[in-house]
Amino acid sequence: MLQDLVGKKPLFSCAIGVTETAKIPGISAAGANPEITDYTPPADVELLHLGKCKCITGVPVTPDGIPTPALITRSALKLANIPIIVVNAGLKIKPQIPFVEVGGLPGNDIRTGKALNNAHEVIERAKIFGENLSKTVDYLVIGESIPGGTTTALSVLLAMGFEAKGKVSSSMPLNPHKLKIKTVKKGLETAGVKEGEFADDPIKAVSTVGDPIQPVVGGLVIGAAENVPVLMAGGTQMAAVLAVVNALKPEVMYNIAIGTTKWIINDKTSDIKGIVSKIADVPIFASDLDFSGSRFNGLKAYEAGVVKEGVGCGGATTAAMLKSNGKITKQIMLKEIENNYNKLVSET
Amino acid sequence: MLQDLVGKKPLFSCAIGVTETAKIPGISAAGANPEITDYTPPADVELLHLGKCKCITGVPVTPDGIPTPALITRSALKLANIPIIVVNAGLKIKPQIPFVEVGGLPGNDIRTGKALNNAHEVIERAKIFGENLSKTVDYLVIGESIPGGTTTALSVLLAMGFEAKGKVSSSMPLNPHKLKIKTVKKGLETAGVKEGEFADDPIKAVSTVGDPIQPVVGGLVIGAAENVPVLMAGGTQMAAVLAVVNALKPEVMYNIAIGTTKWIINDKTSDIKGIVSKIADVPIFASDLDFSGSRFNGLKAYEAGVVKEGVGCGGATTAAMLKSNGKITKQIMLKEIENNYNKLVSET
Repeated sequence: MLQDLVGKKPLFSCAIGVTETAKIPGISAAGANPEITDYTPPADVELLHLGKCKCITGVPVTPDGIPTPALITRSALKLANIPIIVVNAGLKIKPQIPFVEVGGLPGNDIRTGKALNNAHEVIERAKIFGENLSKTVDYLVIGESIPGGTTTALSVLLAMGFEAKGKVSSSMPLNPHKLKIKTVKKGLETAGVKEGEFADDPIKAVSTVGDPIQPVVGGLVIGAAENVPVLMAGGTQMAAVLAVVNALKPEVMYNIAIGTTKWIINDKTSDIKGIVSKIADVPIFASDLDFSGSRFNGLKAYEAGVVKEGVGCGGATTAAMLKSNGKITKQIMLKEIENNYNKLVSET
Repeated sequence: MLQDLVGKKPLFSCAIGVTETAKIPGISAAGANPEITDYTPPADVELLHLGKCKCITGVPVTPDGIPTPALITRSALKLANIPIIVVNAGLKIKPQIPFVEVGGLPGNDIRTGKALNNAHEVIERAKIFGENLSKTVDYLVIGESIPGGTTTALSVLLAMGFEAKGKVSSSMPLNPHKLKIKTVKKGLETAGVKEGEFADDPIKAVSTVGDPIQPVVGGLVIGAAENVPVLMAGGTQMAAVLAVVNALKPEVMYNIAIGTTKWIINDKTSDIKGIVSKIADVPIFASDLDFSGSRFNGLKAYEAGVVKEGVGCGGATTAAMLKSNGKITKQIMLKEIENNYNKLVSET
């Protein structure tokens, strides 16, 4: 699939949302503390468009100060001059940049068993938008930013019958699998839903224990993949969306790939290949990024397994390399990322 | 310019908004009565995407029951498989389809002299979006739907020093020039602004006596026209936006044309050529549509000067004809419009 995309024109779309699930202490590192995770997705896409954030000072960081992967995505898209369209999947804080509305609302804590209120309508609107986008470019890259998203990925995968306990990734080096499983079990229990019960009803799965980006990304993929290839840019969260898409429209799977980072592929605490292989025969590509020689500790930390993925950074990097026919190398990427990081650090 | 676009890929974008100015009795025929004009723009774009409206029963009509030009736009875009992206410029009722947010808010009655609150920010966000769209396709067609828009066009033109009294068009056969001039004078008077005072400050002009679609379309055009040709799809309302663009970024004017209908060009009660010629040397194209032989009185009425333009119907028709390399003729257009009209009439 990738060979066919060399030199072709992509569009990068990013679905952003929040779920109360991310506020459970210890679940997410996508923000310096749980309460601030509401600001992470809008700040991420402000960074994509403007090179700096408006709704917060500085950029989103982990509790240890490691910067958001949006920095990587921004660098890749800018270098390769790839257009960006942000989709609001459900936010409490709106970004101060243009974004698309498809009716999405913030997600409830999955422990309520009532995660989303209008997933069906959101999927339908996202399908319309994905279909229209697919008429503009050669292929689509779709990323996401939602704190807590690997936990809601686990719950949707389990509700649909894909054994993924201990296999979803984490933005933390120590993956809190126990806490995630406990959270997910509580949600399924409250809803009175058995694992696998929603194998054929992904809309019920996401409505019960999912998060807002799942119906949005799912709808975008379904709407677009009938016309053009779609690179789902993300880690194990995208595997959950893949399960949703596969259950709703299996005939588009031939046109879908997952694009992620080597930090996800090499992660010992998760297993994206294991999850995806049970869903469908879809290729997984890892972008070739290497921060081990970086002059910034905040970037070096990525090599130690912090953050790993997010804001479609892996897929965006792959798209930039493809569009430039390999002229954008990992060395050029690191230099651009370091320059952008340096600018941000010196400004704040 | 048009020759260069034959066979090329366009995208149709439509900015929709409302202004309290439209509620002044006798100003607008874009709705069966003034109060319902809030529903016209969202209903128009629902029709574009879905082939039917969701926020109202039936389709928007004039007080005499003549159907919205969105019917023409829908037919053209569908026939030529042209993608659509709707932008919310400022609405009270949101459409039940995907749309882009750029921070736009509904417009106040221009007689207050305080028409818009955040035009500068809206222009900046629309510029970002226009620039990103321009990286996806060969050219952009930008339409609008805003009841009362020719009155707010007149006021912005006057505030910027372009004599347009008696020259803006109307959706009614009898153009209420006196009422429009009286309304505009009241707005300028309240704000203490002389005609021509904002010749170099279009943002103050639209903020004082403009409407929400002006900064949005203006921003989209400025953002896009640096990279690709832009067809501003509309009548004298687009002339007002042209004045805004020309004052903010004259260097993109070479890449801009106005696309409208022959009903506007042939209109004895308005003078688009006279207005535009004073602003800049920009070509005006009229789509070749002919409803005189239609089996529907609601369509025949267009030939008598009802409606005339709106929802970018002229530019969308031109784009459809260009994209199809002339295979989409006016006969094929009329047949498609009649079929779509018939479906809507028989459903309701």
